[in-house]
Amino acid sequence: MTTSLAGRDIISLSRLGNGQIKKIFDLARDFRRMFDRCHALPPLMAEKVLALIFDQPSTRTYGSTGIAMVRLGGLLAPPFIAASVASSLAKGETFEDMGSSLSEMTVDVIAMRHKKVGSAQRLANGASIPVINCGDGTGKHPTQALLDVFTASRSIGILDSCTVTLLGDLKNGRTVHENGPLFGRFGVQRFFLVSPPLLAMPKRIVTQMERHGTTIIQTQDLEAALKESDLVYATRIQREYFESEEEYDAVRGSYVVDAALLQRTNPNVKVMHPLPRVDELATDIDKLPNALYWEQMRNGVFVRAAILALITGAI
Amino acid sequence: MTTSLAGRDIISLSRLGNGQIKKIFDLARDFRRMFDRCHALPPLMAEKVLALIFDQPSTRTYGSTGIAMVRLGGLLAPPFIAASVASSLAKGETFEDMGSSLSEMTVDVIAMRHKKVGSAQRLANGASIPVINCGDGTGKHPTQALLDVFTASRSIGILDSCTVTLLGDLKNGRTVHENGPLFGRFGVQRFFLVSPPLLAMPKRIVTQMERHGTTIIQTQDLEAALKESDLVYATRIQREYFESEEEYDAVRGSYVVDAALLQRTNPNVKVMHPLPRVDELATDIDKLPNALYWEQMRNGVFVRAAILALITGAI
Amino acid sequence: MTTSLAGRDIISLSRLGNGQIKKIFDLARDFRRMFDRCHALPPLMAEKVLALIFDQPSTRTYGSTGIAMVRLGGLLAPPFIAASVASSLAKGETFEDMGSSLSEMTVDVIAMRHKKVGSAQRLANGASIPVINCGDGTGKHPTQALLDVFTASRSIGILDSCTVTLLGDLKNGRTVHENGPLFGRFGVQRFFLVSPPLLAMPKRIVTQMERHGTTIIQTQDLEAALKESDLVYATRIQREYFESEEEYDAVRGSYVVDAALLQRTNPNVKVMHPLPRVDELATDIDKLPNALYWEQMRNGVFVRAAILALITGAI
Repeated sequence: MTTSLAGRDIISLSRLGNGQIKKIFDLARDFRRMFDRCHALPPLMAEKVLALIFDQPSTRTYGSTGIAMVRLGGLLAPPFIAASVASSLAKGETFEDMGSSLSEMTVDVIAMRHKKVGSAQRLANGASIPVINCGDGTGKHPTQALLDVFTASRSIGILDSCTVTLLGDLKNGRTVHENGPLFGRFGVQRFFLVSPPLLAMPKRIVTQMERHGTTIIQTQDLEAALKESDLVYATRIQREYFESEEEYDAVRGSYVVDAALLQRTNPNVKVMHPLPRVDELATDIDKLPNALYWEQMRNGVFVRAAILALITGAI
Repeated sequence: MTTSLAGRDIISLSRLGNGQIKKIFDLARDFRRMFDRCHALPPLMAEKVLALIFDQPSTRTYGSTGIAMVRLGGLLAPPFIAASVASSLAKGETFEDMGSSLSEMTVDVIAMRHKKVGSAQRLANGASIPVINCGDGTGKHPTQALLDVFTASRSIGILDSCTVTLLGDLKNGRTVHENGPLFGRFGVQRFFLVSPPLLAMPKRIVTQMERHGTTIIQTQDLEAALKESDLVYATRIQREYFESEEEYDAVRGSYVVDAALLQRTNPNVKVMHPLPRVDELATDIDKLPNALYWEQMRNGVFVRAAILALITGAI
Repeated sequence: MTTSLAGRDIISLSRLGNGQIKKIFDLARDFRRMFDRCHALPPLMAEKVLALIFDQPSTRTYGSTGIAMVRLGGLLAPPFIAASVASSLAKGETFEDMGSSLSEMTVDVIAMRHKKVGSAQRLANGASIPVINCGDGTGKHPTQALLDVFTASRSIGILDSCTVTLLGDLKNGRTVHENGPLFGRFGVQRFFLVSPPLLAMPKRIVTQMERHGTTIIQTQDLEAALKESDLVYATRIQREYFESEEEYDAVRGSYVVDAALLQRTNPNVKVMHPLPRVDELATDIDKLPNALYWEQMRNGVFVRAAILALITGAI
């Protein structure tokens, strides 16, 4: 199997081989090292145009994909923001036609977030250029998973003998549906899945995670899980999935990660979070060495830069 | 009459001479040839700034104007999107003041789409820099007409002895109001105007089209028209102009251009459409040599690049 | 006290020394001179990224900050427009977290307008990079005040013995709350504050303005004030603060600055306005030498360019 990524869409991680992912990580690592040293990236994307199509609120994915592009010397088409009201999608244009249209308009690569599951694949079906899925509703968000695993392995080193706790809304969070299996592929030995019963990880994702011989332990006991974990990956619990305010408040209170909890259970555990946070992740961790979420955002720029450079064949 | 375009607004085609239009087409042709060969345009717009003001949904016009600018090495002001709510137009600023303001802010050229008829002219009245009308409601959309005629003549060659069918909503479609007369100026000999009676071409446009000795035939018989046409230009039929769902469905069904229709009537007829389409243009034509609508989008970048370079005096 | 601005936030003018402000003005003057001569600025911001976060309608501040950046060779992150619905602020992210996030995402400087008073300070608290407050609701708008005083002193010369009339809604207008005290610091000798009683300048701002020995005269007699003024700074009177349409119309009519008024009272008085205007400033002044509001907009680009270059340490 070739590891070349030129011309490839990044729609779902299940279609990327480990060799391809390592290629992305290697380039991201080089980009980061270069940037940390001289606050610049090489102008690999000169004369290339990225179109951003974003339908849903986004700070990190939208911002860092665009920043990666301009830091590589690339060009941005004027952004399609609130795309379902402000682009021709509002007039009933199909995703396929939008993909074809942008391809004809000399765009070199598209990054799209849209609330419809499958939208990025449909866009890619119409496009003759590579498409990056930046989140298709409750579907996939592959670049987030890539930057998560990149960050974990960069900070912790070999993930082979690690234990990871995934925490929060494991039912609806597209992030953990992608990075859970990816952590599994990269050797994580054991997972604690900690969530309210209502928000448990779907069976099909658990199955994917078990594929590599990984042990999966589903529990509601966060403290016990943390004691045996190298890493905890926290996500937001969303109010709208609860029937009453009381139920929500009870659950929410029991899944707050703060400095006291770390002190009590495992002062060395690393803490990740895709952000934005509401109150499931306390700010008193922000300056501790446990916090990896700042690194996640920083690495997001370099992982996305690597993806852009590789799929457009710029490198 | 001078053919220089430096400093000229592009508000309506009636104010452009044939020499000026040919100048735009010649440069667009050069740009396209250069880009097809080396995937780059010359940096003619270095140090020049384009402001995009877009009030209404747009993929192609907004995207390709911006892409043309950055491919020419030009700079984009941050875009004014949903301008009637997110710029000072929302506080009651006049178009004239917005034109003056952007001129003072060192902008070199403005491209605006706004739903108010006459808005681009008013902006241009206030501005000391050239303004491109990218669609003013039911008014004009000159760059679309230019890229349409450019595409037809590039694909078909001399238009002098051609027959063109304009199809769909000929009453409300600003596209056919501009490109109809322009096809006439460029020598088209005969037009079939095919539309439901409710959506017939306005008399004043027919008069403009007849000015060059062109024959105009108004009919509802699409098949007969196609049999004698070199080119059919299809447009969307908009539901909101019909009194009942039944009426709409009846009309809509009889104006669908698909591969079977072409096969039955005229396998050589070229098919154009400004896109987006709903279902009046079937996707089974997409890969046939008849389809010119992909070419329209591609040429849109180069026609707009030519306009930008010429009206700013960059060339 | 050091006059260096590298790394400084521009949140409120009260925290900038006169030496620092003069440094901004000197550089803005150089930039303007250079641009007037060769239509270009030096590429001081190469490899630097600006993030624009704009929640409220804006043409001038948003546009000219972005234009300043690209004219200096800097890069724009894709803009965060309508940020309270289209960025993670919509998911409950705090301003502090947004500041931290953009800092990690390798952004070099942020310019934000948001309707919440104090929002820019909170963003800056989270950020490790400089933040420019482009208006925080009824709070501060320091770059507007800087360009106002820069424009006045560039056109009038030494402000020491000047009399300035501030006109309109002095209660709610954040512009006059910032530029009033700044005019005072730069030596203006006497102010007429002309407003309907309902919209009088708040006591705390009057106190700030008096600090430098300035004489403050509150009046409703615009004609008398103009007769003794070198400069009148007009602002919009907003309908929503009046109880009845009649009250509003009465007030509004008595505060219109037009050519006849200038002729009648003081043909030499300079006229400033932050724009947008509704009808308190007549267009018959637009071409007169009295009008400084075009200069304000033009200088806005260069004052903001100077701020960007200084706070990022590019110069």
